[in-house]
Amino acid sequence: MTDTPNRIRLLARLGYKFSDPALLDLALSHRSCGKINNERLEFLGDSLLGFVIGHELYQRFPEATEGELSRLRSVLVKGETLAELAREFDLGPSLHLGEGEMKSGGFRRDSILADAVEAIIGAILKDADFDTAKDCVLNWYRQRLDEPGLLNTLKDPKTQLQEMMQALKLDLPLYQVVETKGEAHSQSFIISCQVPLLKTVTSAEASNRRKAEKLAAAEAIKLIQQLKK
Amino acid sequence: MTDTPNRIRLLARLGYKFSDPALLDLALSHRSCGKINNERLEFLGDSLLGFVIGHELYQRFPEATEGELSRLRSVLVKGETLAELAREFDLGPSLHLGEGEMKSGGFRRDSILADAVEAIIGAILKDADFDTAKDCVLNWYRQRLDEPGLLNTLKDPKTQLQEMMQALKLDLPLYQVVETKGEAHSQSFIISCQVPLLKTVTSAEASNRRKAEKLAAAEAIKLIQQLKK
Repeated sequence: MTDTPNRIRLLARLGYKFSDPALLDLALSHRSCGKINNERLEFLGDSLLGFVIGHELYQRFPEATEGELSRLRSVLVKGETLAELAREFDLGPSLHLGEGEMKSGGFRRDSILADAVEAIIGAILKDADFDTAKDCVLNWYRQRLDEPGLLNTLKDPKTQLQEMMQALKLDLPLYQVVETKGEAHSQSFIISCQVPLLKTVTSAEASNRRKAEKLAAAEAIKLIQQLKK
Repeated sequence: MTDTPNRIRLLARLGYKFSDPALLDLALSHRSCGKINNERLEFLGDSLLGFVIGHELYQRFPEATEGELSRLRSVLVKGETLAELAREFDLGPSLHLGEGEMKSGGFRRDSILADAVEAIIGAILKDADFDTAKDCVLNWYRQRLDEPGLLNTLKDPKTQLQEMMQALKLDLPLYQVVETKGEAHSQSFIISCQVPLLKTVTSAEASNRRKAEKLAAAEAIKLIQQLKK
């Protein structure tokens, strides 16, 4: 495989140079390509990823319970997060897909992108060694792991928002029912959430009040995080 | 903690000497002991175990599919297998349990034994390093990994038994309905399985023929394996 501009950019973003470039090609080969595909490497990479992230969380959060560590790990290694990484690498254009997947835009699909990231981890382990693969993974995850609110993401959004306001010594969030729709057995609620930091009031609709409050709180958290940037 | 005979024997069977023996005590402390318990170490050990076994299977079975590797791994790391290991180590008498668990015989319970094995793996990783913990795990699993029929265990018993007979150039297994019980909607079948190697005919009962055949075949395989010993 010649080094196309896409691939050169990909390698730079991965921060790893393969001794055996065929391994990278294998990692990028979705099963729609045929019998020679990335599924075995994906298995290998997934195993390593779970361990490296688990170990790192264990060390970073000496006060976290086993349940918190498990949930944090599952947030970090889930397909959605891996697909985000793939997009940061701009992996899509370098994927090898069968014709059908190519036409249906498979290079944009979360699951295909996530599997390829795991397969690349497996390929690096095979091409080099455990420590090299571990360092790559930790580099890719650096920003997410350093995120000061990482452990907080486990709390429900209402608790998070309340603690944010308390930390800033501001008034607590105010939730109000804006509208109640539908009949008794299929009701839906629109709830607004007002916090002193934001000029706009966020709102959300759900089948019960508590759910709608959580969604409105999550929306407010998103806006507050945008303020910080 | 002084080194009781139980503990000395346990350490010998684990094949590892702790620099910090308190880590072993922590690994042996079930959550029924109180706040200081083995749950975090169990999380750490579970992560390492999944990776080490996954990596080993990947290397040992270059022809296995991703699905086969996953299933093999889950057989090897499941609670039942870990509890078997715990019994080989005679771990039970060294466990630290709360009073309630002690009285109800928690030291014999699969889940408590399995969790302690994972916690010990985590403790070794913390006490030493990745390579040391990996070597311990692979030593403990040596016999199971070397088992010639390991990949075959994934096949259904009828296929396994048929392939055994073919390999030995013997007549194929003969399945016969011995009895059909009950009404149409709640029937049960007794099926016999006859193979040239065995003097006895095995049989099994299930709610459909295929299930009963599989059970009878599994029974025959068990008897054949006993012949070999």
